[in-house]
Amino acid sequence: MTAPPLAHLINELTKLPGVGGKSAQRLAYHILKRPAAEAEMLAAAILDVKTKIFRCSVCNNITDIDPCFYCTSATRNRKTICVVEEPNSILAIEKTRQFSGLYHVLGGALSPLQGVGPDQLKIKSLIERLKGGVEEIIIATNPNAEGEATAMYLSKLIKPLGIRV
Amino acid sequence: MTAPPLAHLINELTKLPGVGGKSAQRLAYHILKRPAAEAEMLAAAILDVKTKIFRCSVCNNITDIDPCFYCTSATRNRKTICVVEEPNSILAIEKTRQFSGLYHVLGGALSPLQGVGPDQLKIKSLIERLKGGVEEIIIATNPNAEGEATAMYLSKLIKPLGIRV
Repeated sequence: MTAPPLAHLINELTKLPGVGGKSAQRLAYHILKRPAAEAEMLAAAILDVKTKIFRCSVCNNITDIDPCFYCTSATRNRKTICVVEEPNSILAIEKTRQFSGLYHVLGGALSPLQGVGPDQLKIKSLIERLKGGVEEIIIATNPNAEGEATAMYLSKLIKPLGIRV
Repeated sequence: MTAPPLAHLINELTKLPGVGGKSAQRLAYHILKRPAAEAEMLAAAILDVKTKIFRCSVCNNITDIDPCFYCTSATRNRKTICVVEEPNSILAIEKTRQFSGLYHVLGGALSPLQGVGPDQLKIKSLIERLKGGVEEIIIATNPNAEGEATAMYLSKLIKPLGIRV
């Protein structure tokens, strides 16, 4: 019999993506073995992301300051906005060091079957931002059906405004 | 740039066994996306194992009651003790449903190179337990050099006491 607090932790860990029963057990025993300070730091870090991280009011990226790092940067090119589905795409693009413009996070892709229409995405706030001297939009949605459909939709919406897409 | 609280969580997660940079990032984004209640439950479960789980004063198994579930059980055969290195071996043996005796957790295996001698393991308390009507010891240390050496050492120690090993 696994002691209830340990069984409970294993159960919570299996809710994480890619963590099966065996991995969860291994992780739980690891946490049990390591000093309490380490477990406390991990628990605090988990709680911290939920309390200190929110969405940037301009670009919808995740941030702990508002507006976010990119939106407040003095060195980035404010004439180009790269539109992505989720914040993790921003990290991937930043790693290439090829883009120095601003970002806009939609919060997903159009998916009528899953009930995600234009109103569920941050499209209205994107259109609002285009009024401030933006000259080019780069659409970097994911390379799947939903991502392509979203890119098509945005392209049709933005081109008539006289902005390069 | 990753927001500092998120970067911190990713860093804490990479300290877990089998969790690399990419996995840690994926887990951190998952925690960020899910409701706060879920993150709180995970954090609480992590802290709980450190505060509520301790070692059984009889067999050294991890437990939240003392003596543990196995040591206090009225239905288990108290004449046989299975000796293991770590608590997770107990779960593996229990899954076989072939053993109904008691357990004793050494807390490791003899490893002179790593400074683990007999005094670092729960051998003294095992010998103490043998006085209480134990007839047989099953040594289930791990099938590697240290485990085999530990089994040999225990066997030489226990056989002269008139107990089956």
